[in-house]
Amino acid sequence: MPLPIAVLISGSGSNLQAIIDRIESGAIEAKIVLVASSAPGAFGLTRAAGRGIPTRTIAPEHFCSRDEYDQALLDAVTAAGARAIVLAGFMRILGPRFVRAFPQRILNIHPALLPSFAGTHGARDAAAYGVKISGCTVHFVDEEMDHGPVVVQAAVPALDADTAETLAARVLALEHRIYPQAVAWLAAGRLCVNGRKVTLAGADTPLAAVEPGAAYLVNPPLEQGF
Amino acid sequence: MPLPIAVLISGSGSNLQAIIDRIESGAIEAKIVLVASSAPGAFGLTRAAGRGIPTRTIAPEHFCSRDEYDQALLDAVTAAGARAIVLAGFMRILGPRFVRAFPQRILNIHPALLPSFAGTHGARDAAAYGVKISGCTVHFVDEEMDHGPVVVQAAVPALDADTAETLAARVLALEHRIYPQAVAWLAAGRLCVNGRKVTLAGADTPLAAVEPGAAYLVNPPLEQGF
Repeated sequence: MPLPIAVLISGSGSNLQAIIDRIESGAIEAKIVLVASSAPGAFGLTRAAGRGIPTRTIAPEHFCSRDEYDQALLDAVTAAGARAIVLAGFMRILGPRFVRAFPQRILNIHPALLPSFAGTHGARDAAAYGVKISGCTVHFVDEEMDHGPVVVQAAVPALDADTAETLAARVLALEHRIYPQAVAWLAAGRLCVNGRKVTLAGADTPLAAVEPGAAYLVNPPLEQGF
Repeated sequence: MPLPIAVLISGSGSNLQAIIDRIESGAIEAKIVLVASSAPGAFGLTRAAGRGIPTRTIAPEHFCSRDEYDQALLDAVTAAGARAIVLAGFMRILGPRFVRAFPQRILNIHPALLPSFAGTHGARDAAAYGVKISGCTVHFVDEEMDHGPVVVQAAVPALDADTAETLAARVLALEHRIYPQAVAWLAAGRLCVNGRKVTLAGADTPLAAVEPGAAYLVNPPLEQGF
């Protein structure tokens, strides 16, 4: 049975789109039961509605406290039957009430090689630092920002000719591959969490191989379909 | 004329050895005019002496203050005619007096993808965090620890079966390639520093290519001989 997931967004939802595409191709055994946005009119809502996915806007400014907001969000995903949560550009910190309701069932993606450049401007901060290698990270969400156990990371070069924008675009292209892959692993029950260490059950490849000619490194390696 | 460099060590000096080897192969246009150790009896001193390189032990416990120590170190490298400094497992923070005497002429290597895991136990801290991609960083030294502009980085996968030791060994193998490469670029006058951004003059490869089958990513790419 496909895993019922809720996707939380605040903006254009390009990672949401990548996940929808891989669900439709059959590479992810999941069903999106709700797309909820913290911002009214987010383009991700339009993407979801276009595919017949139920949508909700749950805006923090409509609630008296963060706790009330968290409870409303929790009520919405629970009512939709979600058993896992995927954050795709969701620009809010989830409170303990929400996080504890889905232990090791909430994924987030961050546009940097965590723990470097945690925070709101990961991609921009990496460019400003002058890194030679940047990347992105999918991790489980815990009660600290950009902090939970790491599921998969991708590394890309930061080139001399790059601007913050071209570097961010190179990272985003990898986000669209590793995030659907991580959701597929979660849906298949293959992510084993032990403290901070996440291992992948049933991995074929003992050693991460870089695709010939590829200018990036992904670990664990991407599987067929991603 | 080969660039005269001093190498500062505190221990076994495996990165020193990698640099000596690439100087002897002709890949680095430099001459090591002094190997100075902060620890008496460091094995790196034996390596250097075996290749006819002058050595000194300058131990901090023989000086009343950090400033006096820095001055002694500065006197030694200056007397030896060094025009650039390479830190290879040197377990001391250089003070402002020393750093300012060699602006953008001091290199250090760190066993993590900076700014992640700065500090004394970079490799071990990365393993404990549960990263999926770790690596190493060559950077210019400024007055903050593990902080100056980044010259080159290498990324390697952290495998499920890794211990902290096997991961550190995989990182170290790349250190032995990127550090000599960085010293070669410095010696050739090809490292252009602009604020935090280091660009490489005369690079052939516009896009960092990963060697086919290689399980790592290096940027800027390694050149012939490294």
